[in-house]
Amino acid sequence: MQYADKPIEPLDADGIERIHDTAMRILEEIGIDFLNEEAKTILKDAGCDVASDSDQVRRDRDFVMQQVAKAPSTFMITPRNPSRKIFIGGDKLALSPVSSPPNATDIDRGRRADNRTDYQNFLKLSQTFNCLHMIGGYPVEPVDLHASTRHLDALYDKLTLTDKASHAYSLGAARVEDAIEMFRIAAGLTHEEFEATPRMFTNINSSSPLKHDWPMLDGAMRLARRNQCVVVTPFTLAGAMAPVTLPSALAQQTAECLAAIVLLQTVRPGAPVVYGAFTSNVDMKSGAPAFGTPEYMRAMQISGQLARRYKLPLRASNANAANCADAQAMWESVFSLWGSTSGHANMMFHAAGWLEGGLAASFEKFVMDCEVLQQFIYYHQPVSTTDGDLAFDAIREVGSSGHCFGCDHTQSRYRTAFYSPFLSDWRNFETWQEAGSETVLERANRLWKQLIKEYTPPPMEESLRDELEAFVIKRKQEGGAPTDF
Amino acid sequence: MQYADKPIEPLDADGIERIHDTAMRILEEIGIDFLNEEAKTILKDAGCDVASDSDQVRRDRDFVMQQVAKAPSTFMITPRNPSRKIFIGGDKLALSPVSSPPNATDIDRGRRADNRTDYQNFLKLSQTFNCLHMIGGYPVEPVDLHASTRHLDALYDKLTLTDKASHAYSLGAARVEDAIEMFRIAAGLTHEEFEATPRMFTNINSSSPLKHDWPMLDGAMRLARRNQCVVVTPFTLAGAMAPVTLPSALAQQTAECLAAIVLLQTVRPGAPVVYGAFTSNVDMKSGAPAFGTPEYMRAMQISGQLARRYKLPLRASNANAANCADAQAMWESVFSLWGSTSGHANMMFHAAGWLEGGLAASFEKFVMDCEVLQQFIYYHQPVSTTDGDLAFDAIREVGSSGHCFGCDHTQSRYRTAFYSPFLSDWRNFETWQEAGSETVLERANRLWKQLIKEYTPPPMEESLRDELEAFVIKRKQEGGAPTDF
Repeated sequence: MQYADKPIEPLDADGIERIHDTAMRILEEIGIDFLNEEAKTILKDAGCDVASDSDQVRRDRDFVMQQVAKAPSTFMITPRNPSRKIFIGGDKLALSPVSSPPNATDIDRGRRADNRTDYQNFLKLSQTFNCLHMIGGYPVEPVDLHASTRHLDALYDKLTLTDKASHAYSLGAARVEDAIEMFRIAAGLTHEEFEATPRMFTNINSSSPLKHDWPMLDGAMRLARRNQCVVVTPFTLAGAMAPVTLPSALAQQTAECLAAIVLLQTVRPGAPVVYGAFTSNVDMKSGAPAFGTPEYMRAMQISGQLARRYKLPLRASNANAANCADAQAMWESVFSLWGSTSGHANMMFHAAGWLEGGLAASFEKFVMDCEVLQQFIYYHQPVSTTDGDLAFDAIREVGSSGHCFGCDHTQSRYRTAFYSPFLSDWRNFETWQEAGSETVLERANRLWKQLIKEYTPPPMEESLRDELEAFVIKRKQEGGAPTDF
Repeated sequence: MQYADKPIEPLDADGIERIHDTAMRILEEIGIDFLNEEAKTILKDAGCDVASDSDQVRRDRDFVMQQVAKAPSTFMITPRNPSRKIFIGGDKLALSPVSSPPNATDIDRGRRADNRTDYQNFLKLSQTFNCLHMIGGYPVEPVDLHASTRHLDALYDKLTLTDKASHAYSLGAARVEDAIEMFRIAAGLTHEEFEATPRMFTNINSSSPLKHDWPMLDGAMRLARRNQCVVVTPFTLAGAMAPVTLPSALAQQTAECLAAIVLLQTVRPGAPVVYGAFTSNVDMKSGAPAFGTPEYMRAMQISGQLARRYKLPLRASNANAANCADAQAMWESVFSLWGSTSGHANMMFHAAGWLEGGLAASFEKFVMDCEVLQQFIYYHQPVSTTDGDLAFDAIREVGSSGHCFGCDHTQSRYRTAFYSPFLSDWRNFETWQEAGSETVLERANRLWKQLIKEYTPPPMEESLRDELEAFVIKRKQEGGAPTDF
């Protein structure tokens, strides 16, 4: 989708420069720990100040800005179905479903540890809804699959049940190399064709405060070398892993994010990267993370200002902290969406189905979120004011005692005049009551089950599917990936 | 509250002028029906073209703009408790609870025809929540009170159970005169003091398309003559009482609104008036009104542009079309709030408790809405970037292996750092489950009952209360107001 509104910018240029300056001072004077020898060597060779007795890396702001400037401000990600390619950056937004919760939940069976069936069902829904443009991490973690080979089965499901642009985890060298190979095979590409343009993405989180861990950096470098997209998302919850004030948390977010982007632009200048924003606040009574708060909204809008200052695309999330798919879950989600879209996020993770601050994926919330996302997309259609839109003659024709439904102007336009919901119930109370007084939660429950029944997989050349399957079998026979990273 | 963000403006100046021009052509070429002889005489005397064989009144755009220019762009409304006075216009927003539904509902007793107890309970909640700055029409219609004297008891309740700026209906001369007298008595004012500044407000709706009825015009003129505030709100649902295209419905809304404002500025130049926006769309399958839609949001934002073009304050609503206080009700409400606030509405009607497109008032939704309203108010606090906010030293102190909770910077600020909700549940799943897995609806239910128990009436001088009571008794003895208007 494309934004019709200008972004909301809470800070003036001076405020943004003050956050930028603080981020630069963090990088120059405090440094960021890189728990990855290869990364440290690369940065040392590039002239950074790498501590001999710790993992701290300090870098000069001129070098930081010179490297960040090498990143493209916009790029495309082209999945195995090229007609599904997505534009990242500018005034565009791409949406992906929930990623990575350890639990699945629905109102029939309640909350349970994730499994491959739930995982596949979320993928089917993700493929079905047109408002979702890409697939993030696993919508739920299929923990019934053995950790050493889980990535093989899970990616096989993803690449066959969906044909949208997709993510792979940075969880160790073997997994990342397997993922890259599977994305390449599924698209029927040579290695050269694969690297010609971004085909997939990963997301790495810093271990805030001020630290990047080994596997995330390793995976990020592997993708960057192959010209694939890396989203760098610090986990800077204000009051916990970052100071209790928003500007400070955002300065830390920027420092942690740019630290990794500098590395990736050193590894491969021009590699596609995204400024990831996840800054929110915690409940200072309990320490629990909060999302969809006023603070989260401001954090996303200011993150947008910062991302534009660095000419980088912005990633945000549709987050909430509710424990069930109730009204709180949805108002927090809509707050998150307004904050993120008014900040002009370019990638929205967790756009459908996220619950419990990311600890559960809800089937009903998935469907409710998609209804809301469609309305956001519709909202961003421009309003035109042609003579036909202004309809003076229709007003004259109807006069003071008529009704507009019958006039030609209405009859020729009513089918497409307004957004038409698939889930919202606008019937009058009596009709709704006679039909059983279903809440939106119950309607969403009916709908996700129906959509999974009606799901049809996207087409895939048989030879590619066979090759992908053969790769999975071979890698399983080899024992999969080490689980002790 | 005061807006921190600039308004969102979907149309450029040319688009707004095209809507304005269409509105002027409606007023000049088609005319608006005024079903009120006094109003027609006043406008005829002012030079308008009043039809001899119908109620149509046409007026020249120069006259329209000359009269509209007499209205103040900002003013205050001062209730009986002067410390509760509210600012109307500019970048300020005043919020009022739900008005006028014929039904009340809660999850204990379900939906029922309204009665005085529910009415009083909603007033108590309206007085309790600080996020509500004024009281609109009756939060529910106390239909157990006889129609001829209902306004006396209902206004007595309103003026004694609350001390916030408040509304009276324009439902016939006797009721309006009674209301004006009761507002004056409750505030202990002479007639001269009462008229010195706005003390109360009414809302009138046009009978769209293109018609203003007798009692609404009569009440509006009575208030305007006494320098009291009149909100003029056309009921222009696109696809029903207005054309199916938004710009056309907004041109009609503008024409109907300005038609009445011209009358009021002719009756009393400088009378405080408000541009009321209620334009939304209908479900073209069923004809049912829809609210909190993408179309509603754009309608409110463009209404804001129009109101600013005419230098008038803007009234909007927190509306939704859900049949119960579920997630749909809340996401539609939050959409309504974003549309209205991003359009810089100055008065928000129905801000808490509205359900079913206005046919029911929900106690639980009232409480949920207040939680959301408080978050909107908090959101509009400006973000500052002082050195203390940027907290470079705290980031250095915590380093890469600490946690921010313990540092001085956090300890000195954590109590007031973030918005703290009274209703949202941010506990982790296990704690929430052990405590009984309450949904937000169940928490809201507990809370409204507790708040009504804890309610204490605002202070009122005994002599004023006695005088008000005596007035009610006298007017009841006289038979109240005619019910056949």
